[in-house]
Amino acid sequence: MANPLTPDALADPVALTRALVDIESVSRNEKEIADCIELVLADAPHLTVQRHQNTLMARTDLGREQRVVLAGHLDTVPLNDNFPSRMVDDLIYGCGTADMKSGTALALHLAVTLPDPRYDVTYFFYEAEEIDSAYNGLNLVAQTHPEWLAADFAILLEPTYGVVEAGCQGTMRAVVRTTGRRAHSARSWRGVNAIHAAGEVLRRLQEYPARSVTIDDCTYREGLNAVRILGGVAGNVIPDRCEVEVNYRFAPDRSIEQAEAHLREVFTGYDVEITDAAPAALPGLTAAPAREFLAAVGERPAAKLGWTDVARFAALGIPALNFGPGDPNLAHTQDEHVEIGRIRDGAATLHRWLAS
Amino acid sequence: MANPLTPDALADPVALTRALVDIESVSRNEKEIADCIELVLADAPHLTVQRHQNTLMARTDLGREQRVVLAGHLDTVPLNDNFPSRMVDDLIYGCGTADMKSGTALALHLAVTLPDPRYDVTYFFYEAEEIDSAYNGLNLVAQTHPEWLAADFAILLEPTYGVVEAGCQGTMRAVVRTTGRRAHSARSWRGVNAIHAAGEVLRRLQEYPARSVTIDDCTYREGLNAVRILGGVAGNVIPDRCEVEVNYRFAPDRSIEQAEAHLREVFTGYDVEITDAAPAALPGLTAAPAREFLAAVGERPAAKLGWTDVARFAALGIPALNFGPGDPNLAHTQDEHVEIGRIRDGAATLHRWLAS
Repeated sequence: MANPLTPDALADPVALTRALVDIESVSRNEKEIADCIELVLADAPHLTVQRHQNTLMARTDLGREQRVVLAGHLDTVPLNDNFPSRMVDDLIYGCGTADMKSGTALALHLAVTLPDPRYDVTYFFYEAEEIDSAYNGLNLVAQTHPEWLAADFAILLEPTYGVVEAGCQGTMRAVVRTTGRRAHSARSWRGVNAIHAAGEVLRRLQEYPARSVTIDDCTYREGLNAVRILGGVAGNVIPDRCEVEVNYRFAPDRSIEQAEAHLREVFTGYDVEITDAAPAALPGLTAAPAREFLAAVGERPAAKLGWTDVARFAALGIPALNFGPGDPNLAHTQDEHVEIGRIRDGAATLHRWLAS
Repeated sequence: MANPLTPDALADPVALTRALVDIESVSRNEKEIADCIELVLADAPHLTVQRHQNTLMARTDLGREQRVVLAGHLDTVPLNDNFPSRMVDDLIYGCGTADMKSGTALALHLAVTLPDPRYDVTYFFYEAEEIDSAYNGLNLVAQTHPEWLAADFAILLEPTYGVVEAGCQGTMRAVVRTTGRRAHSARSWRGVNAIHAAGEVLRRLQEYPARSVTIDDCTYREGLNAVRILGGVAGNVIPDRCEVEVNYRFAPDRSIEQAEAHLREVFTGYDVEITDAAPAALPGLTAAPAREFLAAVGERPAAKLGWTDVARFAALGIPALNFGPGDPNLAHTQDEHVEIGRIRDGAATLHRWLAS
């Protein structure tokens, strides 16, 4: 079968977005799209290409003083009656248009059409970002080939609607438990109601004064929320256990350890079990390539509040940010689409920065 | 097969207890025990016997001024390695010994051995008390043959350990709902957390001043408790719904309608759905046969806090109480047993009252 990533498509990020969207690549089914991309990367004489499973790394080795990363994931959430792509006026509709094949198209377009960037560039086209991090291509590379990730600055082309979103907040989940003593509800005074005891946990959450933290001109707005509550034994039994699962989103001035200490302080007097945590990432906008990139964009950066793969680079000491043409509010929706103008603007910005 | 309910067994409530326990009759399997009992009732010339499914009604028609009911259920909870019965010193162990074949044995003993009681007596031996009330034999009789239940006073031989437990509390279940607005937990301020909002519901429960109500010298202690709480959408979503199921046990000075009005007042401002309700029963100890029975017992009555079939009689305007030899704390336990002395005491009390 002919490779749909034709030279004409590679020369035009809009055509390339459609071509990538039209290769179905729901998470765990990225082989075909990775094969197609590997072929065109291997044809570019200025690139060295490596592959790990369905993750591709392609790099220039021009001896520049600094190296930057451009990365895009290949997978999408499951199709939702939105495949293949459709053009409606100046919009491209379809699964993955915003999240994030339009961004991935920008990286692939630059990889094959820009043989002499002003920094050395490492491109990543990686698998399984939308599912459990055990499958995440960048995570696997960090474990098996960490040297591939070496760089001074990284851009993930996740949907930001053309704005720079810097750093990311950390996330921690914990279960706060209350205990009591069972009794028949007809003689409730013989028991201790663990659900009633959870009222105080909810009061602390309701009254929690969430911080706003400004770093490098980016304001991170924290949040501490119950995301699940469960308690009860039977309709005629005073319950002896209740669990409140909380999710703490914390600014990058706190480490995981500090976030945990804070949670335990908020819930002093209760059994607190940390069940899940991912570190925050500092915006890191003071590095030279980052400052130059911001100048090319020409707009103030915003804080990234959700957790993204930016944090994987931050954990390696590499400043990283998100910048892509898609609208993050459209990610994972049936109505997902991308504006052609945003794709062209993003391509122009990246050219202005890398080619100058 | 010979009927295990022999004349010798019928003459001795202790032997009769064992004989009844040794006919397995887990709920929905009462046919055999009902068949055995029907045979011995039909042999008693002073009784008129009727049957509905596996519920038996036997009555004297001596033209007495007053009629009393003695009722016992035939079914047990599932066996739990406690069948057949065992004698250990002065205890009979086995499934149903306390709840309530020792009580049912007293009624059956009186039915066949007391041809000329001082009141006319209607005896009930009924099926399916331990399961959903749709199967309850007394409930079915109330629907199909309500005239069978006509009486001036009723005793249920449920386990009370030889004490008179009078009336019963009502029970009502309701679901109290809070609502909010979903949002990604990384941008929690865009949402409204319905679990946090449930904190106020729990606070009202925690601070609820439960009443104690004394009627006919019996003190009913109310209770209002959360028995279940459930909320949450996903680990990264601000939840938009939370449900708290509450159970209100109310004294017999309140009707179901009054209990509902009270619940709605307690939870003013919240969506309250009543899901289940059973009325309370007044102790009704002022009726003449009740006063005479209390004199025969010679001890002060106590309030019945759990809901029992006493309420079915109360709903028909018939004063009713619980009185049986079993220990209610042993009901439904693997270790279930009954004291032989309590069986003999109970038989003596009922004789003193009925035969005088």
